[in-house]
Amino acid sequence: MITRRQFFNASAAAMLGAALVSKGQAASLPEAPIQSKSVTQPPLVPPNGRPYQPVVTLNGWTLPWRTKNGWKEFHLIAEPVKREIAPGMMANLWGYNGQSPGPTIECVEGDKVRIFVTNKLPEHTTIHWHGVLLPNGMDGVGGLNQPHIAAGKTYVYEFVMKNSGTFMYHPHADEMVQMAMGMMGFIVVHPKNPNQYQVDRDFVFLINAFDIDPGSYTPRVNTMLDFNLWCWNSRVFPGIDPLVVRKDDRVRIRMGNLTMTNHPIHVHGHNFSVTCTDGGWVQKSAQWPETTVDMPIGALRAIEFVADAPGDWAFHCHKSHHVMNAMGHGVPTMIGVDHRGVAEKINKLLPEYMVMGERGMAEMGEMEMPLPDNTLPMMSGQGPFGPLEMGGMFTVVKIREGLARDDYADPGWYKHPKGSVAYEWKGDLPAS
Amino acid sequence: MITRRQFFNASAAAMLGAALVSKGQAASLPEAPIQSKSVTQPPLVPPNGRPYQPVVTLNGWTLPWRTKNGWKEFHLIAEPVKREIAPGMMANLWGYNGQSPGPTIECVEGDKVRIFVTNKLPEHTTIHWHGVLLPNGMDGVGGLNQPHIAAGKTYVYEFVMKNSGTFMYHPHADEMVQMAMGMMGFIVVHPKNPNQYQVDRDFVFLINAFDIDPGSYTPRVNTMLDFNLWCWNSRVFPGIDPLVVRKDDRVRIRMGNLTMTNHPIHVHGHNFSVTCTDGGWVQKSAQWPETTVDMPIGALRAIEFVADAPGDWAFHCHKSHHVMNAMGHGVPTMIGVDHRGVAEKINKLLPEYMVMGERGMAEMGEMEMPLPDNTLPMMSGQGPFGPLEMGGMFTVVKIREGLARDDYADPGWYKHPKGSVAYEWKGDLPAS
Amino acid sequence: MITRRQFFNASAAAMLGAALVSKGQAASLPEAPIQSKSVTQPPLVPPNGRPYQPVVTLNGWTLPWRTKNGWKEFHLIAEPVKREIAPGMMANLWGYNGQSPGPTIECVEGDKVRIFVTNKLPEHTTIHWHGVLLPNGMDGVGGLNQPHIAAGKTYVYEFVMKNSGTFMYHPHADEMVQMAMGMMGFIVVHPKNPNQYQVDRDFVFLINAFDIDPGSYTPRVNTMLDFNLWCWNSRVFPGIDPLVVRKDDRVRIRMGNLTMTNHPIHVHGHNFSVTCTDGGWVQKSAQWPETTVDMPIGALRAIEFVADAPGDWAFHCHKSHHVMNAMGHGVPTMIGVDHRGVAEKINKLLPEYMVMGERGMAEMGEMEMPLPDNTLPMMSGQGPFGPLEMGGMFTVVKIREGLARDDYADPGWYKHPKGSVAYEWKGDLPAS
Repeated sequence: MITRRQFFNASAAAMLGAALVSKGQAASLPEAPIQSKSVTQPPLVPPNGRPYQPVVTLNGWTLPWRTKNGWKEFHLIAEPVKREIAPGMMANLWGYNGQSPGPTIECVEGDKVRIFVTNKLPEHTTIHWHGVLLPNGMDGVGGLNQPHIAAGKTYVYEFVMKNSGTFMYHPHADEMVQMAMGMMGFIVVHPKNPNQYQVDRDFVFLINAFDIDPGSYTPRVNTMLDFNLWCWNSRVFPGIDPLVVRKDDRVRIRMGNLTMTNHPIHVHGHNFSVTCTDGGWVQKSAQWPETTVDMPIGALRAIEFVADAPGDWAFHCHKSHHVMNAMGHGVPTMIGVDHRGVAEKINKLLPEYMVMGERGMAEMGEMEMPLPDNTLPMMSGQGPFGPLEMGGMFTVVKIREGLARDDYADPGWYKHPKGSVAYEWKGDLPAS
Repeated sequence: MITRRQFFNASAAAMLGAALVSKGQAASLPEAPIQSKSVTQPPLVPPNGRPYQPVVTLNGWTLPWRTKNGWKEFHLIAEPVKREIAPGMMANLWGYNGQSPGPTIECVEGDKVRIFVTNKLPEHTTIHWHGVLLPNGMDGVGGLNQPHIAAGKTYVYEFVMKNSGTFMYHPHADEMVQMAMGMMGFIVVHPKNPNQYQVDRDFVFLINAFDIDPGSYTPRVNTMLDFNLWCWNSRVFPGIDPLVVRKDDRVRIRMGNLTMTNHPIHVHGHNFSVTCTDGGWVQKSAQWPETTVDMPIGALRAIEFVADAPGDWAFHCHKSHHVMNAMGHGVPTMIGVDHRGVAEKINKLLPEYMVMGERGMAEMGEMEMPLPDNTLPMMSGQGPFGPLEMGGMFTVVKIREGLARDDYADPGWYKHPKGSVAYEWKGDLPAS
Repeated sequence: MITRRQFFNASAAAMLGAALVSKGQAASLPEAPIQSKSVTQPPLVPPNGRPYQPVVTLNGWTLPWRTKNGWKEFHLIAEPVKREIAPGMMANLWGYNGQSPGPTIECVEGDKVRIFVTNKLPEHTTIHWHGVLLPNGMDGVGGLNQPHIAAGKTYVYEFVMKNSGTFMYHPHADEMVQMAMGMMGFIVVHPKNPNQYQVDRDFVFLINAFDIDPGSYTPRVNTMLDFNLWCWNSRVFPGIDPLVVRKDDRVRIRMGNLTMTNHPIHVHGHNFSVTCTDGGWVQKSAQWPETTVDMPIGALRAIEFVADAPGDWAFHCHKSHHVMNAMGHGVPTMIGVDHRGVAEKINKLLPEYMVMGERGMAEMGEMEMPLPDNTLPMMSGQGPFGPLEMGGMFTVVKIREGLARDDYADPGWYKHPKGSVAYEWKGDLPAS
């Protein structure tokens, strides 16, 4: 493994005293931790450097770093990975350090950052640091700002994080294919002053989509419109963990969109404002009250609200097909069609023939149908009052009275939050 | 018919002294008026409660209520309906109280509202009150916040309307199917102070889309992208009524989008600002001047402008396919192809064969072609100067000098506004 | 050629003393210059009237006018045109004055403008002046505001440009077809006070899309979603010229979208704000910092930033399929499939059979494959460090230290900017 570095011109303030990394120095590369789990990991409290409140990456994790001569050094490995999309379905993706998306990179405004990228893919790659203001040679567009990183090689990016904010990273080489395969990750740059833009809970995830035929494992990389797995951090409901917060917490949710269409992300029970984009923090005079943020592609948005209403609140994309798992979009509608006579005749020939959908599709949320291997039900999930009939980009914000500030450190906190359930069902169920 | 009610935990201010409705009380359910017409109904001046200026629901109506012990009681019936999409085409949809969309619910900030929902669909349902801040148990997500409302049952929702604003209702149960079938309705909560946010004319409608094959009546509920009927309140042009206003009126148009794609709604001849979303009123410092509002899905926008330019102004979605009625999107282009020799040969075999489109499609706006039953022309409508060549999400804002404030009460006002036509054509027509 | 004019009612301020143009006066029509080139033309410094800093139309030009009795007179010819989409591909489009898009119309706030439109198309047309506030009879909706302009006829539009801003023109007659064929153009109205809203470089272009089958020349006009040529001003990369600016210039880029989907336009290396829409200038208190502007359809946006970071910065649509040229969206994925045995067997039958894509698609950016006539490579372009692997809506903002204010006047400035390259590559290339 060979690493090289790039010497670049920049404004005096950004000029960095960097040195060529020789073959002999390869042994001194920072460790590249690998993640094997797809459940939300506890936040990484910074072991050194300026303090900050770390974020929670939904169904993800934060990349550890080492400090060397005043630089934070990270090591990303671009490589094929296996990702559990939801319990019952695995996908062959491309990602970083064992998962897709790659780990979240967190640092602080003013940090000097050195990121080693080792390419274990079968083809070349690069990384573009989307939204980060940096010297032209570090921008990561293959062919334009740097040579591509060939398979088997390691490349070094170095820059100063000028501004706090909400960013992401992804390849800018064979871009359509590599993003369709799942290569992307989140970047959060915390303010130098930890009291600035402070919130109580800070979640991050990327919005992505795959087209994986039922029964198969590898995405179709040429699909432009008709995706069938609408994901948050390469997960679909019921595989997406809930967002657990204390009552009256100020909550920030940071999202980035790397699909091929807008996603209107809707929070139930609360109004919010967009407070940050990949271009920086939004001034108060410019903020709108909203319940749905229309996420553009290639853009990031942080929304903020006070979690003042206890309970389980739906949180999802408002395109109704994006809260479904893989399904055929060309299937004819049976609503209002009386199959009884026809079904009887067909049953004589095909005893297992089953009529579906003539009264709607709610029954699909309740039944278990035989599915091809490695395929998720179209509608799924169980709530306290019955089937949720959801899939895709859906989860729940759980607002609880009895949580402590550090519940994040408790294994399983995201599944079984402490504290009372805020609502109580005291009436009877409707009579059948 | 049996009604039950739900007892819920909430902040003290929202705590309501509700009681269980027994079978014996079913007779005391509020009346559920049914609407058989698809033309714009005159606004419902509030017969009781705090006064407000009512809205006009485009090709729709407002649901009457009764007052009982300080509560406004409404009754929605979820049921299959027949909706005229435009003269010449009926659709089998699902809706509320005889129509799709359901009736508009209007009330006042601070009102205590009780809404009975009777399910006459063949499958279960629920109602989510999109944008309304309410206790978790009233939020209407089936399985998560309540048991589903089984076919044949009645369910009661109760909450206080905390904020004035622009909201909507729709099922959160078998959601993709039920919204694809037309189940949705508008909610307007007027400010307590009727002088706040006051305008002269206040219109509301929902943006929806259907995929109904030419010659058939029931939507394909699995369609994700390739819809062929782009509607406002389940109507397409020329079935959408015009918006008639007086010159110099301050006009508000409130819209909500429940399709699968953004709709850029364009007003001719005027600049406007977005003044309200489903998250609340937009502060003046944050408002942008626009001529096109990009309507996100699962979101509402109120736009406002002063109608200072008399005349007939186009008002439409700016996606050019969304101002067309059902058509094939894969038909080859004939522009520039000389068919003359070919057509002659084909005509020997098929005397009715007709060559179309080799000079464009304008001729389709002028001719009458034989169509399958229950199918609308692709381009249609007649204006004062010739064929409009439009369909789908198109209508006209008619700004007239001679209108009175209460012209709404005049049957037919929306078709034949009083007052002079603002423009005058005094030149000759172009020579032929 | 016959010209007629329209007499219209309007507010006193807008009332114009116009006269009927008779057949005899046809000879006095203003000249209609024709453009044969598809490369960016130097800006048109205004020869008369109030002074302003002209815009640069990307791969386009500005329409000259004549002054007559205080009116600026323009002459547009609607006609079939041949447009080079990129070197190696021509398209049969419809446009104005020899090109698609038509020429940019520039004038000044308060100008009295008369625009003659001669229709040389095989069908009727009109022009709508999108965003311009004008009398109803001038709004250009065929059938509603005027009779259509028949093939072979000339029509006259007259109005006062009330407001400075960013507008466009396009037909409102057989609209879907005529816009799908490329009929559109930009309008810039400069402020009366040239110091207001002043910038150093001001670029304009329209976002459009075509569906032209590989090997053919004429767009499929019925396509709603699955376009294959994603264009800026009817050009795709590598046919789109770069945007060349001086270091520290204040740069404005004005864009309008007339496709069927949103385009998230991303600028590398800089944060920007949207400062103007087709509804007017955006107040400072309402502006957001962004790196990606989500362009709605039927809307215009001006973005502004200070070009403080020298170098070559990617500038593109962030939908990854929109930075590719024509490709099949349904092609199966070969990633991870080992073809070796299969390929050997197939090669015995078909010696030219080639296996592609099993390691990704980067190799397609490097190789030359035989293509059908008049077809562009899917991924293309060469940068200083290798293949760019791009197509469609992609170009580069070149920020240089050594440029002069008037470099625009230098033939070829847009291809080979003067001044030093801002970045320097001093390291080795990665070892192979």
